[in-house]
Amino acid sequence: MTTTPDDVRPAPRTEPLGVTVPSTVPTHWYNLAADLPEPCPPALHPGTREPLTPDDLAPLFPMALIAQEVSTERWVEIPQTVRELYALWRPSPLVRAVRLERALGTPARIYYKYEGVSPVGSHKPNTAVAQAYYNAVEGITKLTTETGAGQWGASLSMACALLGLRCEVWQVRASYDSKPYRRMQMETYGGVCHSSPSELTAAGRAILASDPETTGSLGMAISEAVEAAATDPAAHYALGSVLNHVLLHQSVIGQEALAQLDEIGEGADVVFGCAGGGSNLGGLAFPFLGRNLREGTTTRVVACEPAACPSMTQGEYRYDFGDVAGLTPLLKMHTLGKDFVPPPIHAGGLRYHGMAPMVSHAYELGLMSAIAVEQGDAFAAGIEFARAEGIIPAPESTHAVAGAIAHARAATEPETIVIGLSGNGILDLPAYHQYL
Amino acid sequence: MTTTPDDVRPAPRTEPLGVTVPSTVPTHWYNLAADLPEPCPPALHPGTREPLTPDDLAPLFPMALIAQEVSTERWVEIPQTVRELYALWRPSPLVRAVRLERALGTPARIYYKYEGVSPVGSHKPNTAVAQAYYNAVEGITKLTTETGAGQWGASLSMACALLGLRCEVWQVRASYDSKPYRRMQMETYGGVCHSSPSELTAAGRAILASDPETTGSLGMAISEAVEAAATDPAAHYALGSVLNHVLLHQSVIGQEALAQLDEIGEGADVVFGCAGGGSNLGGLAFPFLGRNLREGTTTRVVACEPAACPSMTQGEYRYDFGDVAGLTPLLKMHTLGKDFVPPPIHAGGLRYHGMAPMVSHAYELGLMSAIAVEQGDAFAAGIEFARAEGIIPAPESTHAVAGAIAHARAATEPETIVIGLSGNGILDLPAYHQYL
Repeated sequence: MTTTPDDVRPAPRTEPLGVTVPSTVPTHWYNLAADLPEPCPPALHPGTREPLTPDDLAPLFPMALIAQEVSTERWVEIPQTVRELYALWRPSPLVRAVRLERALGTPARIYYKYEGVSPVGSHKPNTAVAQAYYNAVEGITKLTTETGAGQWGASLSMACALLGLRCEVWQVRASYDSKPYRRMQMETYGGVCHSSPSELTAAGRAILASDPETTGSLGMAISEAVEAAATDPAAHYALGSVLNHVLLHQSVIGQEALAQLDEIGEGADVVFGCAGGGSNLGGLAFPFLGRNLREGTTTRVVACEPAACPSMTQGEYRYDFGDVAGLTPLLKMHTLGKDFVPPPIHAGGLRYHGMAPMVSHAYELGLMSAIAVEQGDAFAAGIEFARAEGIIPAPESTHAVAGAIAHARAATEPETIVIGLSGNGILDLPAYHQYL
Repeated sequence: MTTTPDDVRPAPRTEPLGVTVPSTVPTHWYNLAADLPEPCPPALHPGTREPLTPDDLAPLFPMALIAQEVSTERWVEIPQTVRELYALWRPSPLVRAVRLERALGTPARIYYKYEGVSPVGSHKPNTAVAQAYYNAVEGITKLTTETGAGQWGASLSMACALLGLRCEVWQVRASYDSKPYRRMQMETYGGVCHSSPSELTAAGRAILASDPETTGSLGMAISEAVEAAATDPAAHYALGSVLNHVLLHQSVIGQEALAQLDEIGEGADVVFGCAGGGSNLGGLAFPFLGRNLREGTTTRVVACEPAACPSMTQGEYRYDFGDVAGLTPLLKMHTLGKDFVPPPIHAGGLRYHGMAPMVSHAYELGLMSAIAVEQGDAFAAGIEFARAEGIIPAPESTHAVAGAIAHARAATEPETIVIGLSGNGILDLPAYHQYL
């Protein structure tokens, strides 16, 4: 394990640096809660089953994020320091996929919004830098988190490096052992990555005592990361998806896409986004839904989830825990049940038993639809996209590509399709290889 | 091995698609030959030692590229189809590295020009799409090439996919066996990748007969790729660096950087670029040198090469072969000798015994300087950059970062530094890991 010793890591610095940020980087996050016809059901305390209070969350999150979690303000100002960080890779490109259109022989115009230009190659840093910022402002010096395949752990490690925080990540043992690149990425950023379950927490020791050979799970890793944060006054915990404040931060994706379409005089007829925990889908789609609700536009949103983990198309809409152990708050969401073990599909970022409460609520209200995509169809679409457009999409993103391609093939009239390309698949090439 | 069968790969299509290309994507390539105070010495035929004629090259290259190879025209128009392809990822960003400046405590302003946003993560596609285009226009249906670590092979495979050509790559066996990701990338694009030496060519069979256990070399792989192209009337050969036409295509890097600096009212005092075969360095630096020569600006250019393969700082300036077997034309260049075997450093893209003739000539004329960077210093600089700016630079690029950081630390007055960040290091994380 390699990290930056505390004494050489600079103290957190949160003031703006005076960089000129392009006006095309959003100034505010968009909050769908302001425009929903019915409010989203609240999270409940796992013990009392009463709505959570800010005090319940204070040991884990800074007050600014807790406030965002329950905010119904439509526009939340993005701190200038965060905008300066966004400007390192934002605005992300919106590109017309002309070669794909030609290959499909479709009358539709297809655009993709590409988040793979971020330093870690996915949309995750959009919330990682915001979360690191608010924690640094409140005097926190370390963040803990869990990670599966490692995209979130790498993103948070990067954000912590940029803001002068330490970062400690519990990575599911199966991925820790089999997918070393993301761990190396965390360490290059100065993060510390542990195999989970570990001997470092009571939760980890208990799991190892009962099952020394366990390959770990996200649920176990969450327990360890939460315990590590809760027992260290200088530390907080960070989550990469599901929660409202995470989706809020990701709204830069959809806002930019709307502005980029407006600039070229295009209106989106249908938006395809991949759906795992919901942060990419929410970030991409909510600004479109908000415009539908406020201005009467009729953009359709299609959530594309893996057939192997179909929380929206097959799950129940009910209160459930976010983790296996049942330690997290209860969230009203579409869920396959906290004990559902998704098969080991390649789109690791979509292997979650539940769907973000805000996405679930919007789906339940009929504001979006959902489809389940088979893994083979997703990879076939990813390869077709790569050979037409050059970018090899992340396995997660291929689900949105597959949805869009099927739609475009069936189109008989001109229409405008937007694909959310949440990341690139450079570190997932073995999955493509296996498919080929 | 996986590829697209001939009958399903679409026929080459080279006409523009009518996409709107941003005006910030250059319309012309810049050719330093037009502004040099003395002409670059010509390439010589390996047999006669007379200057090469177009006919000598015709079996391997299309006439348009042969013409570019000897052109002294200052501005060469970029075909609209190539500009449309460039627009998939260009213009690449020029970013102010404010956090790095602060970490260094330097009065200098540091900018980096980032080529890692291309679909394969480096600058190589800038010439790959141009070469594939000109070959497709002349009716060629297949390109062959060699590759070491695989960046060039992946770039050419992508370009061939975009233009409807087949692609066959001979990859040095040591990399083929130890670095599978780039091969998987080639195959995802529909390219075919062989371990070199192979049984598929006379050259490969001869090498294997005498040394069945050889780990291969770029020189051997060149021999195989050239033979495969020369013996197939439908095929040509493509080279990823060294030649004049390759550096010409890469001039989009420096031209964009100049325009981006002009737009914010900055003038570059010093430009740092990593130097292997010379395509990244030439592409970045020549437009700056051209402006120096035409307009009297005084931008300094510093070539940053690995201390383990120091062709500019330690090599002789003389005619030498491009390959080990002595089959290529003789090129006047700074060379460590065609038999020089660079140690297995991590910056595979910089492991070449010679330097591009045009770069060598400019260096000999005193138009640029050169430094050699130790691998450890390069990785230390890469990590410092990653933790300040988020991007993990390619091992090749870290040499330029190291040069720039040392310069910036020593600066006592404000000045403007430009770093050529030729690619990202996502697939090179094991090298970082080993360093850490």
